[in-house]
Amino acid sequence: MKAYGAEFLGTFWLVLGGCGSAVLAGRFPEWGIGLTGISLAFGLTVLTMAYAIGHISGGHMNPAVSIGLWAGGRFPASKLLPYIVAQVLGAIVAAGVLYVIASGAPGYQGNLGANGYEAGSPGKYSLVAALVCEVVMTAFFLIIILGATDGRAPAGFAPIAIGFALALIHLISIPVTGTSVNPARSTGPALLVGGTALAQLWLFWVAPIVGALLGAAAYRGIAPEKA
Amino acid sequence: MKAYGAEFLGTFWLVLGGCGSAVLAGRFPEWGIGLTGISLAFGLTVLTMAYAIGHISGGHMNPAVSIGLWAGGRFPASKLLPYIVAQVLGAIVAAGVLYVIASGAPGYQGNLGANGYEAGSPGKYSLVAALVCEVVMTAFFLIIILGATDGRAPAGFAPIAIGFALALIHLISIPVTGTSVNPARSTGPALLVGGTALAQLWLFWVAPIVGALLGAAAYRGIAPEKA
Amino acid sequence: MKAYGAEFLGTFWLVLGGCGSAVLAGRFPEWGIGLTGISLAFGLTVLTMAYAIGHISGGHMNPAVSIGLWAGGRFPASKLLPYIVAQVLGAIVAAGVLYVIASGAPGYQGNLGANGYEAGSPGKYSLVAALVCEVVMTAFFLIIILGATDGRAPAGFAPIAIGFALALIHLISIPVTGTSVNPARSTGPALLVGGTALAQLWLFWVAPIVGALLGAAAYRGIAPEKA
Amino acid sequence: MKAYGAEFLGTFWLVLGGCGSAVLAGRFPEWGIGLTGISLAFGLTVLTMAYAIGHISGGHMNPAVSIGLWAGGRFPASKLLPYIVAQVLGAIVAAGVLYVIASGAPGYQGNLGANGYEAGSPGKYSLVAALVCEVVMTAFFLIIILGATDGRAPAGFAPIAIGFALALIHLISIPVTGTSVNPARSTGPALLVGGTALAQLWLFWVAPIVGALLGAAAYRGIAPEKA
Repeated sequence: MKAYGAEFLGTFWLVLGGCGSAVLAGRFPEWGIGLTGISLAFGLTVLTMAYAIGHISGGHMNPAVSIGLWAGGRFPASKLLPYIVAQVLGAIVAAGVLYVIASGAPGYQGNLGANGYEAGSPGKYSLVAALVCEVVMTAFFLIIILGATDGRAPAGFAPIAIGFALALIHLISIPVTGTSVNPARSTGPALLVGGTALAQLWLFWVAPIVGALLGAAAYRGIAPEKA
Repeated sequence: MKAYGAEFLGTFWLVLGGCGSAVLAGRFPEWGIGLTGISLAFGLTVLTMAYAIGHISGGHMNPAVSIGLWAGGRFPASKLLPYIVAQVLGAIVAAGVLYVIASGAPGYQGNLGANGYEAGSPGKYSLVAALVCEVVMTAFFLIIILGATDGRAPAGFAPIAIGFALALIHLISIPVTGTSVNPARSTGPALLVGGTALAQLWLFWVAPIVGALLGAAAYRGIAPEKA
Repeated sequence: MKAYGAEFLGTFWLVLGGCGSAVLAGRFPEWGIGLTGISLAFGLTVLTMAYAIGHISGGHMNPAVSIGLWAGGRFPASKLLPYIVAQVLGAIVAAGVLYVIASGAPGYQGNLGANGYEAGSPGKYSLVAALVCEVVMTAFFLIIILGATDGRAPAGFAPIAIGFALALIHLISIPVTGTSVNPARSTGPALLVGGTALAQLWLFWVAPIVGALLGAAAYRGIAPEKA
Repeated sequence: MKAYGAEFLGTFWLVLGGCGSAVLAGRFPEWGIGLTGISLAFGLTVLTMAYAIGHISGGHMNPAVSIGLWAGGRFPASKLLPYIVAQVLGAIVAAGVLYVIASGAPGYQGNLGANGYEAGSPGKYSLVAALVCEVVMTAFFLIIILGATDGRAPAGFAPIAIGFALALIHLISIPVTGTSVNPARSTGPALLVGGTALAQLWLFWVAPIVGALLGAAAYRGIAPEKA
C-alpha cells in the first residue's frame, strides 16, 4: 500500500510540476521559461522524486515505465495493475489542482499541457511523425532506465540519468506532441479538458507502451547475461 | 553556535543569490536570464550550500524546512527557535547587501524580489491560488527533503535532489507568487521594501508552514516503518 | 557484439537527441530552446547513455573518443574499426529517423543539424577558425574524458563530467561550426543532406581526430605515472 | 611540474570556455545563449576540469581560490606563486586562442569577455557596487569550496557543488562586473584588449583576494574543530 501511495504522489508531482511549468510559466510575458525551462521541469520532477521515493516504490511514475521494467524482467506482473491505477489517479488529481491554481489568474484559458498530434500538436506534426517520435523516445527512455539501474552501473546515479533523460526527451519532442512517453501524464489533462486531447489520448497509451516493450527488448539485446 | 552561524550564512546566500539573480540579471536588457535562470539560481543556492554546510547544521536555510523536519521526527524542537532566528537574520542582512549592490546602477528601482499575491503577484494570481500553490509546493519540497535524506536513499545525493527541487518549484510558480516556500526568504525583502510586500508577508509564513506539516505527514504515510 | 550494439544505439541517441533538438525545437516560434537548449540536449545524450551503456561498451559514441582513448592507452587498437563502424551506422540511421519525424511538419526544410565552415557555418566562420575551434574543443574533451575516468578520480561521476563537457563545448562553439568534435555525428546528417555538408565533411573527421590525439598527449603530460 | 601543467590547462579551459561562450554565442542573433548559457558555461568549465585534474593539482584554476585555500589551511604557501603563474599564463594563452577563433567571423569586434565597473560594467554599476559584489561573491565561493571539500562532506561531489557555485555567481553578477571572482580570468582578456579593461584590472585582483580571505575566515568560524 505504501508503494502505491508513493506512486500516486510521484505521478502527481510529475504532472503538477511538468504541466504546471508549461501552463503557468511557459509563455509568461517577456521572460517566460520557454521549452528549455519546461523540459528541465519535467526532468526534475523525476530526478527529485526518484531520490525521494525510489527506495519505497522504485519511483516509476509512468505506466510505460512499469510495463517496460516488467518486460525487462525487473518488475512483477502482479503489481502492474495497482501501480498503473495509482499513477493515473495521481495524474488526474494533479491536473485538477493545476486547474485550481491556473484559473486563479485573470483571463486564464488553457489546455493544462495536454498532448496531441495534427491539430493537437504544437508544431502541427502528422499522426505518423507523432507515433514514430513517441515510440522511439519511450524506447530510449527505457534503455536508459534499464541501463542506469543495472547492477553493473554506478550505484545512486540512476535518478540523475533518468531525470535528465526525460528533460532531454522534452528538449527534442515538445514541438511534435507536447511530449508524453507517459500514458498517465497524458490522461490527467485530457480528462479535464476533453475535446481533441481526449479524442487523441489513445496514441499516448499505445505509442509509449509499444516503445517501452521495444526498449526493453533492445536493452536485453545489448546487455550481458545477467543484470 | 557554529550551526546557527552556518544557517545565517546559508540563508544569506539563498536570498542574495536567488533574489539577487532576479533583481540584477532577471530582466537585463536583450539577454537577461529570465525565469529559467532565476529558478536555477534559487536551486543552486541550496545545492551549493547543502554541500558546504550540510555537515555543520544540516543546511536547512528555511524555517519551513526546519519545522517540517521536526514534524518528520528528524529535528529536535529545542533548536527550532534559534535556527529560525538565524535564518531570518541572514535573509534580512542579505536583502540589505543586495540593496547596496542593486542601487549602484543608474535608475535602479525594484522590490528586491519580494513575494506577493493579487497586486503583488507577477501574474496577478488570486489569494486562493497563491495559498494553494505555496502550500502544495512546500508540501512536496518536504516530501523530497525527507525522502532524499532518508537512510535508505543513496548517500550524498540529497543536496542535488533538494536543490533541483527548489529550482523546479520556481520553474512552476514564480508567476503565481514569485515563489516563497520559505518564510525567511520572504521576510528579508519585505522588511526592506515595506508596502504591499510587508502587508502580504503573513501568507508566506502561514502557507509554507502548513505545507511543510502536510508534507511531513504525507511522507510518514508512505515511508516504511523507520527512517 | 553486444558492445558494438551498444555503440550503435548510443550514437543513434546522440544524433537523434542532439540534432533532433536543434531541428525540431531549436528555433520553434516564440519559445524555442535556442543554443542553450541544444547544447544541453547534446550533453544529456552523452550523460544519459554513459550511465546506460558505460558498463557494456564504455559508451564512446564518437570515433574521436575511441581514437583518443586508444592514444591514451585505455582502448585496444583491435576494437577501433568495429567501434567506429557501429558509431557511424548509428549516426546515419538516426539522421534517417530524424528526417521521418521532422518532415512530418508542414513546410519542413532543414539540414538535419549538419556541421560546416564558411558558407556552412552558422556564424560564417572561416576555415581556419573552424579548424582551430574543432581541434581545441576535441582536445579538451579528451583531457576531460581521460581525467574523469582516471582511476584516481572519484568513481561514478565520469558521465556527469563528460556529458556536461559536451554541453559546454556546444555552448561555446555552435556559432562556429555547429559543433562536431565527433566525426560520426557529422557524417549522419551530411550523408542525408549532401551538398555543402558533404563537401565539408572531411574537416569534421580530420580536426576531431587531430584534437583527440593532442588531448591524449596533453593528458599523458600532466598525469602521474600510471592511470 | 605536472600540477602546474594541470593548472595551466585548467585555467586555459575556464577562460576559453567561459569567455568563449560569451564572445561567440552570448548574443548570437535570434537564438543566442544569453546570460543563462554563459553562466552555465563558466560553471561547467570548473565542474568538468575539477573532475579531470582534481586528483592532479586540486583543480584551483583561480589565484583567489589558491589563496583562500591557503588561508583556510588547506594549501601550502610554497606553492602559491607557481600555481598563480601557471593560472595567469593559461588565461593569457586562452584569450589569445579565443581571439584567433573569434576574429574568424566577418565583422568581429569585441572585448573577449573582459571585466569592468562603471563604463566597463555591462549594467554601468558603480565602483562601490562592483567592489562589494566581487568581494561577497568570492567570499561565498570560498565558503562553498572549503565546505564541499571538507572531509566531513560527502566524497566526490565537490566538483558539482563548486562548478554550480560558479554558475550561480554568474547568474547573479554578470550585469555588475561581467563577473570575475578570479584574477587570472580577468587578466587574460584585459592584457589583450587593453584600454578600460586593463585600467580597471586592479579591482579584479584586489576584490577576489579580499573576498577569498574573508570567506576562509568565515568558514573557519562555522566549521567544527578540524577538517
